[in-house]
Amino acid sequence: MQSGDSSLRKRLFQIIFESDTPQAKAFDIVLITLILLSVTTVFLDSVPHLHERFGEIFYLVEWGFTLIFTLELALRLYCLDRPLRYLRSFYGVLDLLAILPTWLALFLPGAQSLLVVRVLRVLRVFRVLRLMEFVGEGRLLVEALQRSQRKILLFLTTVLLIITIFGALIYMIEPPEAGFTSMPRAMYWAVVTLTTVGYGDIAPITPLGQFISAFMMVLGYSIIAVPTGVFSAEVIRSIQRERYSEEACPGCGHEGHERDAKYCRFCGTWLDEETPDPHAPREEDTPDDDEKNSDG
Amino acid sequence: MQSGDSSLRKRLFQIIFESDTPQAKAFDIVLITLILLSVTTVFLDSVPHLHERFGEIFYLVEWGFTLIFTLELALRLYCLDRPLRYLRSFYGVLDLLAILPTWLALFLPGAQSLLVVRVLRVLRVFRVLRLMEFVGEGRLLVEALQRSQRKILLFLTTVLLIITIFGALIYMIEPPEAGFTSMPRAMYWAVVTLTTVGYGDIAPITPLGQFISAFMMVLGYSIIAVPTGVFSAEVIRSIQRERYSEEACPGCGHEGHERDAKYCRFCGTWLDEETPDPHAPREEDTPDDDEKNSDG
Amino acid sequence: MQSGDSSLRKRLFQIIFESDTPQAKAFDIVLITLILLSVTTVFLDSVPHLHERFGEIFYLVEWGFTLIFTLELALRLYCLDRPLRYLRSFYGVLDLLAILPTWLALFLPGAQSLLVVRVLRVLRVFRVLRLMEFVGEGRLLVEALQRSQRKILLFLTTVLLIITIFGALIYMIEPPEAGFTSMPRAMYWAVVTLTTVGYGDIAPITPLGQFISAFMMVLGYSIIAVPTGVFSAEVIRSIQRERYSEEACPGCGHEGHERDAKYCRFCGTWLDEETPDPHAPREEDTPDDDEKNSDG
Amino acid sequence: MQSGDSSLRKRLFQIIFESDTPQAKAFDIVLITLILLSVTTVFLDSVPHLHERFGEIFYLVEWGFTLIFTLELALRLYCLDRPLRYLRSFYGVLDLLAILPTWLALFLPGAQSLLVVRVLRVLRVFRVLRLMEFVGEGRLLVEALQRSQRKILLFLTTVLLIITIFGALIYMIEPPEAGFTSMPRAMYWAVVTLTTVGYGDIAPITPLGQFISAFMMVLGYSIIAVPTGVFSAEVIRSIQRERYSEEACPGCGHEGHERDAKYCRFCGTWLDEETPDPHAPREEDTPDDDEKNSDG
Repeated sequence: MQSGDSSLRKRLFQIIFESDTPQAKAFDIVLITLILLSVTTVFLDSVPHLHERFGEIFYLVEWGFTLIFTLELALRLYCLDRPLRYLRSFYGVLDLLAILPTWLALFLPGAQSLLVVRVLRVLRVFRVLRLMEFVGEGRLLVEALQRSQRKILLFLTTVLLIITIFGALIYMIEPPEAGFTSMPRAMYWAVVTLTTVGYGDIAPITPLGQFISAFMMVLGYSIIAVPTGVFSAEVIRSIQRERYSEEACPGCGHEGHERDAKYCRFCGTWLDEETPDPHAPREEDTPDDDEKNSDG
Repeated sequence: MQSGDSSLRKRLFQIIFESDTPQAKAFDIVLITLILLSVTTVFLDSVPHLHERFGEIFYLVEWGFTLIFTLELALRLYCLDRPLRYLRSFYGVLDLLAILPTWLALFLPGAQSLLVVRVLRVLRVFRVLRLMEFVGEGRLLVEALQRSQRKILLFLTTVLLIITIFGALIYMIEPPEAGFTSMPRAMYWAVVTLTTVGYGDIAPITPLGQFISAFMMVLGYSIIAVPTGVFSAEVIRSIQRERYSEEACPGCGHEGHERDAKYCRFCGTWLDEETPDPHAPREEDTPDDDEKNSDG
Repeated sequence: MQSGDSSLRKRLFQIIFESDTPQAKAFDIVLITLILLSVTTVFLDSVPHLHERFGEIFYLVEWGFTLIFTLELALRLYCLDRPLRYLRSFYGVLDLLAILPTWLALFLPGAQSLLVVRVLRVLRVFRVLRLMEFVGEGRLLVEALQRSQRKILLFLTTVLLIITIFGALIYMIEPPEAGFTSMPRAMYWAVVTLTTVGYGDIAPITPLGQFISAFMMVLGYSIIAVPTGVFSAEVIRSIQRERYSEEACPGCGHEGHERDAKYCRFCGTWLDEETPDPHAPREEDTPDDDEKNSDG
Repeated sequence: MQSGDSSLRKRLFQIIFESDTPQAKAFDIVLITLILLSVTTVFLDSVPHLHERFGEIFYLVEWGFTLIFTLELALRLYCLDRPLRYLRSFYGVLDLLAILPTWLALFLPGAQSLLVVRVLRVLRVFRVLRLMEFVGEGRLLVEALQRSQRKILLFLTTVLLIITIFGALIYMIEPPEAGFTSMPRAMYWAVVTLTTVGYGDIAPITPLGQFISAFMMVLGYSIIAVPTGVFSAEVIRSIQRERYSEEACPGCGHEGHERDAKYCRFCGTWLDEETPDPHAPREEDTPDDDEKNSDG
């Protein structure tokens, strides 16, 4: 019985946590469909006139999803050797948050309203993308983001300083009637303006304030070139990387040779194992590697 | 008669469906002009005060275009061997939709108002672009889009998740008075904000809501770098690919020769392996260019 | 007298139309300063409360600028052999338009209000940029724009079709109360939305309209990648072009060799005139170009 | 005492002005934290309902920061040989502006309200970034900006001309009721529109005005490609420059070796001319690698 149990756990593990068997793929697809349906239910239930008419149906459906997700979480914990560790992991916390509100509502009326956190489960979409060969693309983008990370942080710091300083400046210039009632609010306006969102809920009314706003707009409009330029450059580098071979030099073990390299750039060893090195000394007249020696 | 008929059909086919004879080009230009005029009529007729004054003229003009387009469709079907197949094709459906409303209005009063679907016929513009040597440019863009397709899908998925999660978040934070009356509406606001459109028809009013909005704006402002970077990289690759051959020089192994290169720019070796080098020394004094010839 | 006159005209020509002598540069700078000042006057005069207080001063100042610009135009015409031709040129028309309104106002009361066209004279800024070594930069950008011209036209055509079709679609969906009172107005809304401007003067109010708007926003937000990618690629190509030598091959006369090219890629001729071709046959054993033949 | 004094000054100098010892790093971090806290206090104090409740506490806290920053400035001046010079430097002026308002308020009631200039001290963040190895990234971005500077100036000049001309145009077309009450205001609208901010506080209401606006929007939407393309190209150049040497291989003339390359990847020649090739055959069996050695 024990071994049967262990093989059941093993099979469950393969189906639930891996994604290379047909069953595992089917499980992933069914799961993401259920998650999307449950999120749709939460969304529809939030529309007042739908809630009025179908509120009770939504309530039942939500209980249905809660039971299914509870069963799913139980199976996940069952087939793991260290279930508590999973519960503390990122996806484990999301799984728990998705079912807790409904269960809590049995004891605490109103907890139901927290059901909205179930929305976070949509993040499982990223796990399902594995199925669709998006991994390579994703890795490439993440790599490019990681390499441009510091430059983009520098850009964001600059943006934050611009927002702080211009927010304070416009707060001093504009009268409170224009909506600039406090400095944090003026900063909010600065973000709305610099990012070219432009709600218009707060807008400068004095000529000087409008001049400064116009300056900020042109600034915001132009500096978008910075993250775009940085990221473009890194994506291009990532794509060109595909130009790099992943084989190591047989001489010194260094990796990262360009695909067209014929000699290791670190130790000069001939890299192409299928053809002989044209400059290599022939056996009998080692080590001369050039022409004139032939008439010895 | 039959053969005359068949040759008429053949000529009609060439004029209507191809675009390499002067008549075919003239047909395409006349057709696209008529389409644009008919769409303009539909647009002008929708302006209330123009409809009042010129409504009857517009009605006659629309009937005129309907008759012309009906004749055109009849000719198209006449010169094809499988007319039904065309009717089920993309452009066939558009052709039919463009004339149906006017005809239907004879039997069903009000069908006229569907005339607006005639607008879709402007998509024929893309067919006319063939005339203007836009094909190469278009192909290059489509190729770059296809290669960046998966990365852009990944980006759009991420954008959708951000919109869903932030929409739910702001729905919990903001009071309904600010306009966040349901989660779908909050998601609509999230799209308006993340894409930096910023209508301002719904805007957060609580400090926390404004802080989260500000965060979303900076996020939306920055991540536009992702599709831009990806697509830039692919266009660059397309342009370079069009220009550089991927074959290596048989002499020195150097890659990256321009497609029109006949000699390696590093060692002067003849690159085109199919034809002999016109500057090569004639047979009697051919240089032996490898080691085995050494008569040692 | 005649020759003195002709030399005066010649000197005036050099000062007014060229820009390589100190006087010519001074003339350009003084002129652009006067243009900017005159435009500023027109702008300030348009502000109601300034017009009330300083209206008369502005009137005098505008007459002053008109007299100066009239004198300038007279000098321009005087030192040209074909003055009428200049008057029909782009800058000639601008020069005339800048002074006509004030003169016309003597006869036609109200013509003064056309003075605003004087603003167009600011386009002379582009001529003055010559002074500041901006020519090379400008040429590079214009070149890149020219090369990406067709792709950007294709993009703009697509944008126009999207705007037309979505404008018609939203016109059918949204009630006129939301501001979509005619199809041209709906198209205006579509432009405001797709370009992410988002005034909010017209905004959809039905759920379906908001869903379609959200789709358009994400579309507009993403496709900005197209012109950006195309133009980036072309700028990169322009910059790399600087990589290309402008010298012609001494063998076949072809130009456009990459700077690191040692052999002409069309005829294989050795390009570097300062050092001898290492593969060139030495005189005594022409034409063998390799090693083994040395023992002849 | 004197030498002790001088060594104290020297140590203070190292801690305050440099950043390579642990104490200096700690000083920088404590300072930036204090600056951010003091700015936060100024911001919170500007919120009316917080000012009402905690106004007196904020007042005390601001005096605390003023005393600390006064002490810091005194120490800075004490350990410099030319303190006045520092006071006239960029950061010196900021340091003084940050403490003056509070001190002045002792004599001039109301000077306190100028405390907002303390916000400018956040610019010290850029100095602290030194600690975090952001220097290289920053230098690369600044370099790319410098190289694209003239092109971006040209772009901004064009943008300014577009704004001026379209502002004047729309001022003539639109009635003052739409908000276009003066030309400077119309220019403000033109900036809001071209940069795709789109507050909507001023918006055209005539069909012609809306048509021109739509044109401006598509223009603004498209030309963002210009600074983005220019800057992308320069970042790519900076990154590649950092990576590839510009020296040619002495063996085969090939360029574009990565900076860490020791051997040419095409012919295996040793690239570092200053040190001998460790893999080169020893003297007695040196291969003659040029023609003169031929013992004919």
